[in-house]
Amino acid sequence: MRTIHLIGIGTGNPEHLTLQGIRALNATDVVFALDKGEAKSGLNAVRRTICERYRERPGCRFVEAPDPERDRRPADYGLAVDDWHAARATLYEELIATHLGADEQGAFLVWGDPALYDSTLRILDRVRARGRIDFAVSVVPGITSVQALAASHRIPLHRIGEPVRITTGRRLREAGPVDGATVVMLDGDPRFDGLDPALTIYWGAYLGTPDEILVSGRLGTVADDIRRVRTEARERHGWIMDIYLLVPPEA
Amino acid sequence: MRTIHLIGIGTGNPEHLTLQGIRALNATDVVFALDKGEAKSGLNAVRRTICERYRERPGCRFVEAPDPERDRRPADYGLAVDDWHAARATLYEELIATHLGADEQGAFLVWGDPALYDSTLRILDRVRARGRIDFAVSVVPGITSVQALAASHRIPLHRIGEPVRITTGRRLREAGPVDGATVVMLDGDPRFDGLDPALTIYWGAYLGTPDEILVSGRLGTVADDIRRVRTEARERHGWIMDIYLLVPPEA
Repeated sequence: MRTIHLIGIGTGNPEHLTLQGIRALNATDVVFALDKGEAKSGLNAVRRTICERYRERPGCRFVEAPDPERDRRPADYGLAVDDWHAARATLYEELIATHLGADEQGAFLVWGDPALYDSTLRILDRVRARGRIDFAVSVVPGITSVQALAASHRIPLHRIGEPVRITTGRRLREAGPVDGATVVMLDGDPRFDGLDPALTIYWGAYLGTPDEILVSGRLGTVADDIRRVRTEARERHGWIMDIYLLVPPEA
Repeated sequence: MRTIHLIGIGTGNPEHLTLQGIRALNATDVVFALDKGEAKSGLNAVRRTICERYRERPGCRFVEAPDPERDRRPADYGLAVDDWHAARATLYEELIATHLGADEQGAFLVWGDPALYDSTLRILDRVRARGRIDFAVSVVPGITSVQALAASHRIPLHRIGEPVRITTGRRLREAGPVDGATVVMLDGDPRFDGLDPALTIYWGAYLGTPDEILVSGRLGTVADDIRRVRTEARERHGWIMDIYLLVPPEA
């Protein structure tokens, strides 16, 4: 039976890879990757570096396919994601059926961790539900940008014994005031409007890479700096991956 | 100047260690560990295994000291934690001053990740604030039990684009109904009372180790099983580390 490994590879530092990840990579015959266009080609370059650096035997096939088009400003977010997942499921089924032999092992090298804001696991479930091909799935956890952010700022994510919430830019804007430690991911346009300026923010981009940028301070003081730095960096690199933690003032 | 590395080592599978962790370990002259008594001696055994297996040069000193006593049922939780952190700060200061040369590098091998429900970072901040000794701190992120839980169950932590909350058993009981994906850590006595039986629970113990146990299902159906399995395992091992994810029914 075919096996597909979902290997969390961390946030761009090839040394975020775990020994468990290296073991799975070395059992892998074919690495599947989506080509997300020129701007994000650096992400697949990191994947190729990981394959070349940490595979002990040669001959891993690297199969890259163009990512299906996605509506970035849909009227109905849930429906648009569903369409896009369906298109990816068709593509993954085709890739696996075409490129992976009946007893071979494939892998997706997932940015961060396969359990957090990554669709590969859901899409592979859809592929299996379609019933055309079957395979086992193994998941190897990886370092998330949440952890890389805290490590680079050398901070805990929460006050002693308190909870932490991980959310998206979209959800942050829908939710009420920030009432506890809140990590915000996938915020394509952080405007910080409507947020308490007394919040402390810990912001980071390109975490774990030589291009890492960190800014922290009182939100009211550093918000404009972050927006300026972010815009400049995004123009320079052609893409940005960033994340921030908001911490309310001590009660 | 002295450097102290806080190295996240994952949840008991030595292969959770990252390459960045191995690099820091190999720069380390002294590994500091707390002895938490017979029952938890398995945790330091994993730390020693990691040192022996992944250090390329011999001669790392392993300095173990008894963990200060902690009031487990305090009248005032915040005050008790503060006392205990103060006692640990005194101990860490003494350990570093005694065992680490002026230009040497020390390390604490932190279960999970240094940013999530671990006190080492806060305690080292206290040591520095005391002003007797100075040192640089470097943090190496590690796989948390949150990620290990999701990987072993092969699930995402949240529905598409939705938030996830990470909290403690104590806080779960204080908070209202579970209104989104909620990971519960540090629940020494999970009774699940007052929780909606229609929640789905994904529970795991000794994650990533050969003793790993997984149970999942509708909370109302599996809660008693989990409590029974948990009690048996805890008696057999003398200790338990477990975690669970609660997911509300689809709206």
